[in-house]
Amino acid sequence: MKRRFDPVGVVSDDEVEHIHNASLEVLSDIGMEFLHPKALSMWADAGAKVDDTRVRIDPELICELVAHSPAEFTLHAPDPARNVVIGGNNVVFAAVASPPNSSDVAGGRRTGNREDFRRLVMLSDVINAVHTHGGYPVEPTDIHSSIRHLEATRDLLTLSNKAVKCYSLGAQRNRDVLEMVRIVRGVTDDELDTQTSLQTIINTSSPLRLDTPMLEGIMELSSRNQLVTITPFTLAGAMAPVTVAGAVVQQNAEALAGIAFAQLVRLGAPVMYGGFTSNVDMRSGAPAFGTPEYMQAAMLGGQMARRYNLPYRSSNACAANTVDAQAAWESAFSLWGAVMGGANFVLHGLGWMEGGLCASYEKMVIDADLVNTVSLWMQPVETGADAFGLDAIAEVGPGGHFFGAAHTQARYRDAFFEPMVSDWRNFESWEEAGSPTAREKAAELVPQLLDQHEPPDLSDDVMAELNDFTERRIAEGGVETDF
Amino acid sequence: MKRRFDPVGVVSDDEVEHIHNASLEVLSDIGMEFLHPKALSMWADAGAKVDDTRVRIDPELICELVAHSPAEFTLHAPDPARNVVIGGNNVVFAAVASPPNSSDVAGGRRTGNREDFRRLVMLSDVINAVHTHGGYPVEPTDIHSSIRHLEATRDLLTLSNKAVKCYSLGAQRNRDVLEMVRIVRGVTDDELDTQTSLQTIINTSSPLRLDTPMLEGIMELSSRNQLVTITPFTLAGAMAPVTVAGAVVQQNAEALAGIAFAQLVRLGAPVMYGGFTSNVDMRSGAPAFGTPEYMQAAMLGGQMARRYNLPYRSSNACAANTVDAQAAWESAFSLWGAVMGGANFVLHGLGWMEGGLCASYEKMVIDADLVNTVSLWMQPVETGADAFGLDAIAEVGPGGHFFGAAHTQARYRDAFFEPMVSDWRNFESWEEAGSPTAREKAAELVPQLLDQHEPPDLSDDVMAELNDFTERRIAEGGVETDF
Repeated sequence: MKRRFDPVGVVSDDEVEHIHNASLEVLSDIGMEFLHPKALSMWADAGAKVDDTRVRIDPELICELVAHSPAEFTLHAPDPARNVVIGGNNVVFAAVASPPNSSDVAGGRRTGNREDFRRLVMLSDVINAVHTHGGYPVEPTDIHSSIRHLEATRDLLTLSNKAVKCYSLGAQRNRDVLEMVRIVRGVTDDELDTQTSLQTIINTSSPLRLDTPMLEGIMELSSRNQLVTITPFTLAGAMAPVTVAGAVVQQNAEALAGIAFAQLVRLGAPVMYGGFTSNVDMRSGAPAFGTPEYMQAAMLGGQMARRYNLPYRSSNACAANTVDAQAAWESAFSLWGAVMGGANFVLHGLGWMEGGLCASYEKMVIDADLVNTVSLWMQPVETGADAFGLDAIAEVGPGGHFFGAAHTQARYRDAFFEPMVSDWRNFESWEEAGSPTAREKAAELVPQLLDQHEPPDLSDDVMAELNDFTERRIAEGGVETDF
Repeated sequence: MKRRFDPVGVVSDDEVEHIHNASLEVLSDIGMEFLHPKALSMWADAGAKVDDTRVRIDPELICELVAHSPAEFTLHAPDPARNVVIGGNNVVFAAVASPPNSSDVAGGRRTGNREDFRRLVMLSDVINAVHTHGGYPVEPTDIHSSIRHLEATRDLLTLSNKAVKCYSLGAQRNRDVLEMVRIVRGVTDDELDTQTSLQTIINTSSPLRLDTPMLEGIMELSSRNQLVTITPFTLAGAMAPVTVAGAVVQQNAEALAGIAFAQLVRLGAPVMYGGFTSNVDMRSGAPAFGTPEYMQAAMLGGQMARRYNLPYRSSNACAANTVDAQAAWESAFSLWGAVMGGANFVLHGLGWMEGGLCASYEKMVIDADLVNTVSLWMQPVETGADAFGLDAIAEVGPGGHFFGAAHTQARYRDAFFEPMVSDWRNFESWEEAGSPTAREKAAELVPQLLDQHEPPDLSDDVMAELNDFTERRIAEGGVETDF
């Protein structure tokens, strides 16, 4: 999926420079907290001013480090046919990640569990608009957190051949998942170090803090040349200034600090600039998505990422509690901001609801139609003599119709996108069919899509190695948890 | 409402020229039917080849005539505060026009009638995202068609002070409505001839035909310097070639023929280039909207209009039968194609359903949020020292929050757009409130908005003159009907 037009910006190039300079001022004057002794000593060694956990970094150092980030790279999937290129004019869509709940029409809303996790992974595998996994499409909370990453990653790798993500909840989890990906890809450690095959999202604890597990995630993954996306969670009015520009100044400062740290870990490590700035409802403090401010921030984030020649991550977000009109328009506006703003990677591209608190089966199916619509709209419009159909226009003449024209007959089968969910029947036929809403039509499609799922064909050797590793680590108790 | 970025195109400038040339070839070689003796003699006098009702027009003549069309002009409303500028980077939204049915949650779907017509006019008047009327927001079919234009226009002019439209269903109707607009604007005939105050939509009978009443509409309105929008109804695969480029070649030929004819009637008469190309479902023949092909055609239409320096009209269309997710995403994608494609006028901007067969009260309220979202997104992002909020970032520091910051307190009241319909409560609160969908929330707002309606304050003299004219014309039997 390629973007074939220049991204649209919402401020001038001069204003981009002002935001850039203001962010650098934040990092040099106010500084950022890095809650990890090793990170602090690395910054001190690099010449930053370290005062307790506060790190103040000169503009030159930030810019020099960030400049080492690659503009484009490949994210390798277990199946090479599922590799995706990140950066340039590529647009990659990932499924929803990390909601604590899931819902469908049949079973309602429930706490995330392994059965739903597995079914949503299968659905994500079948839907072609999902290019990579975004993480856990729902949190399998019935697996103890000490071993959740082991069981969940084994499920992901045995149910799907699309690229996976690990959560940065401590170094050992990163290492475990990286080893599992190495096994399934059938490569050596050295090969893995030259082939980005795993990603993690690093959320800053806005304002201006990077927590211990996040810093461990950067150290583990960047040191192995794996993908780190720094995404500040800068909700304007809550964790960031109440203006779009102010929130993006802070987003930019935090993103640059994280990206610079990734380069300090390993020069040239692949990173993405993540933008997640939105606003809150100032009456309730609730986060809002798909708003005018969200669209502006998504596009401004893209302008900042391009300022540094970095791949840009955005989202397909909404705050709706059910798969109604609100869910669809907030998602469509989020996609508008992301795609027109030049996003290279759209996390939560399919299935996200409730500001991230719920994964919806029906929303995932509907988002497949939305993502495919955007994808096909970006395809080149065929031009030239045959596409113009002048012979058909002459053949039909004034007042006729084109259904029977030779030009139509030769092309009609695959002339147009056929969405899965849209109901284009007239009102009377639709009413006779029981007046189904899009949500209900999507619900009917879910079992049909799940029936199409086929697990990847992993060799016996790979399966054995993967199971041996997973079972051994589970037997060892996984990782320590602090609860 | 101003567009602050360059419109996005889907083909190269060279390809625009190829489409331009192909359209001119259609007009010179195949020609177009003009079903009106006077139009035929005007074309013959201008040097076109007229053969029975078929007119073949040389490229030079088309281009010379089209070049006389103004790039920008004002559409005067009964209240000057409601005037709108058409062209340039202005984007004007009009309410839905002409559906034969209307619906709301309370009363379901019913045949268009005067009561719904009046209520939808009042709703269109109250909603600030409606910049002008698009026509009749629902067809008042219980008014006999011989006098419908008289009663309906009187309702429009006494219930609202936004600019109105007349339907081109014969010259006398155009003349009657123009006189009613003149009365309410309180101007002379000569003044009206220099102040565009009324518009009409001219749909070609695609392929390649302009019917008698449409040609009368152009002759009546263009001769009086009123606005004529030529909108071919080129559904790809049905009334036009099955390709996007082919359908737009035909759209362009038909639009240019109509616009050139308007200039033949009066050089410099204000026109808009209308684009309405979409595709049909090739299995059923049903029209589709908000599809990838629709978006491409909307943007390609904008490129063609800009080729001629003409204001561009697009739509906010959907094919959904209820105000569900489908209605919202098809509308959002239609808006995306229109606004990013450089539309100056979005007809059916609020309230359209079912491919134009139904006006929905709830959809009109929801579309108000959609249009306002797009409008506010296009506003400049405030930049500069105070907007950046560096003091607030310093004040809050790492790990704090911005709710209490001075910067937030000074700005929070109107920091962000507050949509009418969006529900941003968390799931539990939303469920306790009865799990309302966006459609149900919009339904609750309809009576509240209607309560806000106030009729325009027309003077007694104007009211008397308007009533005298209307009653006299009704007493005369209105216009002849052929049924």
